[in-house]
Amino acid sequence: MHCGVDIGGTNTRIGILDKEGRMLDCDNLKTACYTEARDLIVTIAYSILRMAKVGGFEIESIGVGCPNVNPFDGTLENAANLKFKGKVSLRDEFRKYFPQIPLAFDNDANAAAIGEKIYGKARGIDNYISFTLGTGIGGGVVCDGKLIYGLNGMAGELGHIIIRPGQRACGCGRSGCLEQYAAANGIFRTYRELCTRQGCPPQAEDYRQLAEIAMAGDPTALETYRITGEILGLALANIACVTAPTHIFLFGGVAQVKEILLQPLRESFYANLLGSYGKNIRIELSALMDAGKDAAILGAAALACKA
Amino acid sequence: MHCGVDIGGTNTRIGILDKEGRMLDCDNLKTACYTEARDLIVTIAYSILRMAKVGGFEIESIGVGCPNVNPFDGTLENAANLKFKGKVSLRDEFRKYFPQIPLAFDNDANAAAIGEKIYGKARGIDNYISFTLGTGIGGGVVCDGKLIYGLNGMAGELGHIIIRPGQRACGCGRSGCLEQYAAANGIFRTYRELCTRQGCPPQAEDYRQLAEIAMAGDPTALETYRITGEILGLALANIACVTAPTHIFLFGGVAQVKEILLQPLRESFYANLLGSYGKNIRIELSALMDAGKDAAILGAAALACKA
Repeated sequence: MHCGVDIGGTNTRIGILDKEGRMLDCDNLKTACYTEARDLIVTIAYSILRMAKVGGFEIESIGVGCPNVNPFDGTLENAANLKFKGKVSLRDEFRKYFPQIPLAFDNDANAAAIGEKIYGKARGIDNYISFTLGTGIGGGVVCDGKLIYGLNGMAGELGHIIIRPGQRACGCGRSGCLEQYAAANGIFRTYRELCTRQGCPPQAEDYRQLAEIAMAGDPTALETYRITGEILGLALANIACVTAPTHIFLFGGVAQVKEILLQPLRESFYANLLGSYGKNIRIELSALMDAGKDAAILGAAALACKA
Repeated sequence: MHCGVDIGGTNTRIGILDKEGRMLDCDNLKTACYTEARDLIVTIAYSILRMAKVGGFEIESIGVGCPNVNPFDGTLENAANLKFKGKVSLRDEFRKYFPQIPLAFDNDANAAAIGEKIYGKARGIDNYISFTLGTGIGGGVVCDGKLIYGLNGMAGELGHIIIRPGQRACGCGRSGCLEQYAAANGIFRTYRELCTRQGCPPQAEDYRQLAEIAMAGDPTALETYRITGEILGLALANIACVTAPTHIFLFGGVAQVKEILLQPLRESFYANLLGSYGKNIRIELSALMDAGKDAAILGAAALACKA
């Protein structure tokens, strides 16, 4: 059995999966309650050991998805959404409890990309991008059969491509990043600007409500996703010029509105795509999305499957 | 000895190199005189065999750089700047004359990238981009030690990233491509627009003259390169988000103005670069540029060295 651990800013989710990616057991911890990484990890370790004992599972590997973790050595330093101070070796902490089995660490965007390959639609596909749209934007880029890492594992920072120089300020300290237009808060901001421009009161108070009223057919909300799709389509067409993928898989909370975003996105993508790529590049929803809240666990578990 | 063949729209250059990349002998053919690829290749083959015989060289490999060639099977189809009709297998034609030795085929941008690794500044460097600025723009992208190919070998089409949607028309049928702003003709167009805006008569009639007057200190020409550097710096900062390189090497005719372009380019690049990459990414002139007209031969020869 494979174990996947998804360490997020709010929740840490742990799951035991069989070879086909079916969840056999799972557990949930509140990440924010732990100020020391080693306290969180000892709790994770005992949760895994307990589930294994109760279910009679033999754990063959553990994959850990965590924002900002160094995929090469499993260390974590100054992760923006986690409270842990200084540099911590997640690998060393896990090793204390699991001295023998394969361990793998990577960020959530790369986990989604590997998860797509092991459990999703990317089986047998050598060139693809897993594009995670949620609170932020992450990218896992697979070229010629390999996930690319680059300098310090920092490839795939697709949310920080500057698309509107000098416009919306970004948390990274610059302005005009894609994330400010196509991640949840950015989309909601576009909606509010649109309401102001149209002189109509907003019908949604946050991103979640916006997605709901869009699915219910609210025209201003739909127009918001049309604008977002147009922006994202151009950005993805440009990214395609760098790595020439055959597939782009959309993943994450924002992708849950499905065709409301996908339809204008595809339209803009193909209108802006270099002709020599033709229609050979497909944009699809990630198959991991079907697993709902368990998607990130699947991705994390997959990390160790390739190891 | 290694042999490099650079097939360009105007000239085909052939060189025999020693292990350090020193040119032992070379030859030049007029590509445009050949309407059949096999006629060109038989002439290339006899040129190589003649040079080998006269110099007493043993040819260990032949690398062929050619725009639009398929790097996987060495076929060529509808290359824009070559007159050959239909689909031709360069590999099969070369094989007739060189049945035993390693052959490699790739486009000129990828040849420059591999050339940088074998003979230039990229020895021992695993993440870099070779950025060719000339009549067009080409990119060779090396990630985690490997040149990336993607769908049909079409990765690295960096000249066709759209930076000004709906503006300058591009030969690819779309508008606003980087190539229209940062390749030779695009830069010259920026210069002419600048002259019109400033109400002063142009002092240069083509790109070559523009480069000359810039090097002589003409303020409008220098301002043209400042604008170009600003555009390129942002584009390269965005490309860096995809693959996280440690080095970007500039190559090609446009890069010959050196610091006139490099200085504003670097300024814009670092101003737009994602903070977490810090100053870890260096932008330098390709070492192949020192070989002048022979640079493309070095790149081509390098293709077969890796084989």
